[in-house]
Amino acid sequence: MKRTLSALLLALSLAAPALADEGMWTFDHFPAAKVGAAYGFTPDRAFLDHIRSSSVRIAGGCSASFVSPTGLVMTNHHCAVECVGQLSNKDRDFVATGYYAKQQTDEVACPNFELDALTSINDVTNAVLAATRGKSGTAYNDALKAETARQQATCGTNPAIRCDLVSLYHGGVYDLYAYHRYNDVRLVFAPEYGVAQFGGDPDNFNFPRFDYDISLVRAYEGGKPAATPEYLRWSKNGSRDGDVVFVSGNPGGTSRELTVAQDAYRRDASYPRIISNLAEYRGVLEEFGTTGVEPRRQTHETLFYTENSYKELTGEEHALQDSVFFARLVARENALRAALAKRPALQRAYAGAWDTIARVQRLRTERAIAYNQIGDGQAFQSDLFGYAQTLVRVPVEKAKPSGGRLPEYSDASLARLPDELFSAAPVYPQVEELNLRFSLTKMREYLGSDDPIVRAVLGKKSPETLAHELIVGTKLADVATRKALFEGGAAAIAASQDPMIRFAASIDAQSRSVRKHFEDEVLAPERKASEAIAKARFAIEGTSTYPDATFTPRLSYGTVRGYRDERGRTIAPYTTVGGLFARASGAEPFVLPQSWLDAQSQLDPGTPMNLASTNDIIGGNSGSPLIDKSGEVVGLVFDGNIESLGGNFGFDPKLSRTVSVDSRALLAALRAVYHADRIVSEISPAK
Amino acid sequence: MKRTLSALLLALSLAAPALADEGMWTFDHFPAAKVGAAYGFTPDRAFLDHIRSSSVRIAGGCSASFVSPTGLVMTNHHCAVECVGQLSNKDRDFVATGYYAKQQTDEVACPNFELDALTSINDVTNAVLAATRGKSGTAYNDALKAETARQQATCGTNPAIRCDLVSLYHGGVYDLYAYHRYNDVRLVFAPEYGVAQFGGDPDNFNFPRFDYDISLVRAYEGGKPAATPEYLRWSKNGSRDGDVVFVSGNPGGTSRELTVAQDAYRRDASYPRIISNLAEYRGVLEEFGTTGVEPRRQTHETLFYTENSYKELTGEEHALQDSVFFARLVARENALRAALAKRPALQRAYAGAWDTIARVQRLRTERAIAYNQIGDGQAFQSDLFGYAQTLVRVPVEKAKPSGGRLPEYSDASLARLPDELFSAAPVYPQVEELNLRFSLTKMREYLGSDDPIVRAVLGKKSPETLAHELIVGTKLADVATRKALFEGGAAAIAASQDPMIRFAASIDAQSRSVRKHFEDEVLAPERKASEAIAKARFAIEGTSTYPDATFTPRLSYGTVRGYRDERGRTIAPYTTVGGLFARASGAEPFVLPQSWLDAQSQLDPGTPMNLASTNDIIGGNSGSPLIDKSGEVVGLVFDGNIESLGGNFGFDPKLSRTVSVDSRALLAALRAVYHADRIVSEISPAK
Repeated sequence: MKRTLSALLLALSLAAPALADEGMWTFDHFPAAKVGAAYGFTPDRAFLDHIRSSSVRIAGGCSASFVSPTGLVMTNHHCAVECVGQLSNKDRDFVATGYYAKQQTDEVACPNFELDALTSINDVTNAVLAATRGKSGTAYNDALKAETARQQATCGTNPAIRCDLVSLYHGGVYDLYAYHRYNDVRLVFAPEYGVAQFGGDPDNFNFPRFDYDISLVRAYEGGKPAATPEYLRWSKNGSRDGDVVFVSGNPGGTSRELTVAQDAYRRDASYPRIISNLAEYRGVLEEFGTTGVEPRRQTHETLFYTENSYKELTGEEHALQDSVFFARLVARENALRAALAKRPALQRAYAGAWDTIARVQRLRTERAIAYNQIGDGQAFQSDLFGYAQTLVRVPVEKAKPSGGRLPEYSDASLARLPDELFSAAPVYPQVEELNLRFSLTKMREYLGSDDPIVRAVLGKKSPETLAHELIVGTKLADVATRKALFEGGAAAIAASQDPMIRFAASIDAQSRSVRKHFEDEVLAPERKASEAIAKARFAIEGTSTYPDATFTPRLSYGTVRGYRDERGRTIAPYTTVGGLFARASGAEPFVLPQSWLDAQSQLDPGTPMNLASTNDIIGGNSGSPLIDKSGEVVGLVFDGNIESLGGNFGFDPKLSRTVSVDSRALLAALRAVYHADRIVSEISPAK
Repeated sequence: MKRTLSALLLALSLAAPALADEGMWTFDHFPAAKVGAAYGFTPDRAFLDHIRSSSVRIAGGCSASFVSPTGLVMTNHHCAVECVGQLSNKDRDFVATGYYAKQQTDEVACPNFELDALTSINDVTNAVLAATRGKSGTAYNDALKAETARQQATCGTNPAIRCDLVSLYHGGVYDLYAYHRYNDVRLVFAPEYGVAQFGGDPDNFNFPRFDYDISLVRAYEGGKPAATPEYLRWSKNGSRDGDVVFVSGNPGGTSRELTVAQDAYRRDASYPRIISNLAEYRGVLEEFGTTGVEPRRQTHETLFYTENSYKELTGEEHALQDSVFFARLVARENALRAALAKRPALQRAYAGAWDTIARVQRLRTERAIAYNQIGDGQAFQSDLFGYAQTLVRVPVEKAKPSGGRLPEYSDASLARLPDELFSAAPVYPQVEELNLRFSLTKMREYLGSDDPIVRAVLGKKSPETLAHELIVGTKLADVATRKALFEGGAAAIAASQDPMIRFAASIDAQSRSVRKHFEDEVLAPERKASEAIAKARFAIEGTSTYPDATFTPRLSYGTVRGYRDERGRTIAPYTTVGGLFARASGAEPFVLPQSWLDAQSQLDPGTPMNLASTNDIIGGNSGSPLIDKSGEVVGLVFDGNIESLGGNFGFDPKLSRTVSVDSRALLAALRAVYHADRIVSEISPAK
């Protein structure tokens, strides 16, 4: 999941009910009356349904919206840049130069791009809880897996329909979400990276900001632009300071309902390791990028995501390291437990759950390293290894009933598998070798040279040698080879001499075993205890609050508003196009593309460029539309300020800000810089 | 300072008085009676004086000892590898192949290597406290600087004498340490890196261990081997399990006397940033090393030091993140404060110091980033920038009285400056550019693009461009150029068009200003408050305890002893030469050099290779002799186990172990593998 939006707070509040502007609300429990009381505008059901139907999720980890009746989708540049990179090669680098399909026939298919538009939500809580009641450990996990597969199977195996069992309130509610799934998605427009990510890593998560972080793609069905009658119209006048605004998107995940023990685990064990791993990988990529134009191009997007995650997680860790912030998390938990203690029946039923979770965190500390290295989904950071692992597992899993399989091989999941497994995305052997070498080296470092898993994986070889032999030797970069192995099933896998297939097969038993132990002994008891805490919270607080984010459609509300930062500086809510030109230094990452320099005289320097608003968002919200009370687009969300990064754990209404590209700058540049007349008339038809 | 020895403890105790085997004691307050009571051997004054006189410090950050009457010095390979690398080039890589001076005339001068042998200690506490009494902030700092220069000046400016004002107990005691200084140090013997660092980073800080981490150098005076009548003799029989053993060396620094506020600052602000910076730099170096044999050779030692620091600091951070460990630090402080509260006069005088330190930590958090980036000694990680900064500052500082200068330009310091400034150590432009680019990029990241310091440093350039221009343009790699600028003084600096000189000059005012503010507003009040806490502790605890380590000569005692690790495995105290051969896999970093493979039949596989003992040591102790009760060498300290890394904050007698090369393996390999007969007969004369 791309997490480009996500928190250093001093003045946050963590108590229920939610603060002004707090919350990533589900569409079916949106606090419309509260918004009305605060802002004089009460969203009605039609307003909410329209926004929901016009919103779309990018399965890779972003949000988006339909902005025309013929499938045109607006999202961030950084949400489509992977596709832009995959469509590039050493002779044409669309990431650097941008891309614009002058005619519809120029719209070009992204190798692996899935859009999901929510069509229905069914509450299946009772069925799920009945299936797992009284079970624990392996039995609990097996029952939950089987029930999940059963629920998903009710949607059939049409790849145009996707059903996900969604756990809200950490198991307090189970909903079956059905989506219309689009897997033929084509690139329409992407600006140059230099202006989309103007300011690069130094400006990331900062405000004031000056980015043109937009990309347009189109959903196709049956080879034609999809009909999307529900879509968002463009605002004629944009927003003003103080306007109420909504963000419709898919926040990827928050940790606001976790226990203090889980927070402490993150602070003391999880974040430090992940962050230093990201830092080292970042260094590797940076240096690799200095060896030539093509190495830099091949790792450009990966470096962006790595730097972005590094900055985001560092901000989240920092929030937990703030003793005032952490004390509030403790106080909030204590308040809930104190309320519980006053109700003996609830106390008997649920109070033990906190201790269970604390105990599980200690086990997690011991087990997480091996799990993360080899057990968690795909073991190593290599596409080719990933293909091999999938190919090895498919025939083994297919032989089982759907509900007994690893979840990613259920019938519902297998229906989507070909899109990934047979993707035409290019594979770069040098990058693959770098990634696999890095993964193997870290595995040895974290587990130690004498660990049985490390010995099984490396044998007598060094990470460098093993990575080199596997990447040079494998033929899995070739789609036809992958297809043949897939179609040949168990016999083809058994007969294959491909070194990557043999390698994946040789470590499969160990990988599964590590995963199973972790799921049964750590994840299952934690989930069960979280369900108990959710029930306790419902009993005390009712449903006045919103569930932690789960990368499913949510709506947040707020207003366009500046702030006074921690150094006492007053930050205005809008930046301008003139400010962008003033900030351009000519040195990376502050270099404007020639197209913008050429068009400067056609652009009004007073046009609002980016804007800040108080909406509560987090990573996964990238690409969300910013919508006014007419239901029209006034901006495109692409980031949060640095003060928003503690938002994973708690919302800070004073300092946390959502950062969007202003709709007026979006349109002005489409016209004056890109002369994208076809698209301008599609999104902004003459009246 | 090399910190290859240093602190995850569960079972440590932090209460005064010191535990069994705890303590890095000064030679003048060694707890001989306590050792006698515990081990039946009471070191007398002659024993202590002999060890002290035979011990020597490597100014670069290690420990060592004289092992012959003609200046032969034993230390670790990793303490001399920088010299070995500097004497190498693309055609002869002594790091890879090892080096042995078959005849004395083959002993080759290290470009920049200083040995310091302690000759006297004078207690000057009263003079220093008198000079600073009643002062604070700038005035305190100025007075302390002036008094430091005055004390050092009593030793004159003979470069063969070095005087350091040493602050023990964080200002509780000030001693003037005088050293005999040797700056003509020549390489005698170094084994191949592959066996010196067998197991590389994966095995670093681990035990059981199998390293041959030794190097021999020789101190020269007047072009001849120095006369060193006090030296350590080699033990004939080595040690046995349970033997009492001593470590004489220079532990670089511990933090056992810090307040909880200072510990929390380290845990929450300092370690996370330093560690992720090291991790990223490590990634850069690793990847750079894959681009060719010569890039790898040029960065080999830097990568080792980086990985070593990363692992060490991660272990220290981990200790502070352990809630049980941290709670003990809190309990220890509370106990001292409670004892203070019972004595009203002391309470009035000293109790406020803890709050002062807590307040200063908040200021430190704000200010440390700029200070670390640009104010703290040399701003950027580039030798060429370092030369430029020194050359720019020398004439400015020389114009002031010695006591009013930056301390590194006092008369005493200037006497040693030529050794560094005119060092013949090779400069690698590509590495310099990589380092400067990395430093500039991190400065921009940590301070932000809009910070005035960043703007002053970068101007409109990117870090890449600026680093490239400076490194390509400067002539400072040439020793003669540096000499001419040094001798030309202020006029030569003002007239120089060398871009690095101009760059250093252009940011000098800002660099000095950041430094001064930090020293006056953070360091001075913290030091003053630490002095008060030291006095309070003296008043309560007396002098029964040892001061925090300060990279000055210390003696620790303990016994050869295995342990039971946290996973319940019993670890024997000795490994064997046979174990080394068994562990050699042929894949890096477990590749034995050909010399060892050829000599395998000449080596008794039962010979002890490495050993573990309970001595309390930390980074800086690398190269220390391990000495038995006869005062003879039974080992060469080169590491601590992973469980020792919390030792920065508190000693764990149960799990913390010092790791040494056994003297028997040292001698056996000098004979059978290296045929170093000249040296063998020098250190182990026929009787």
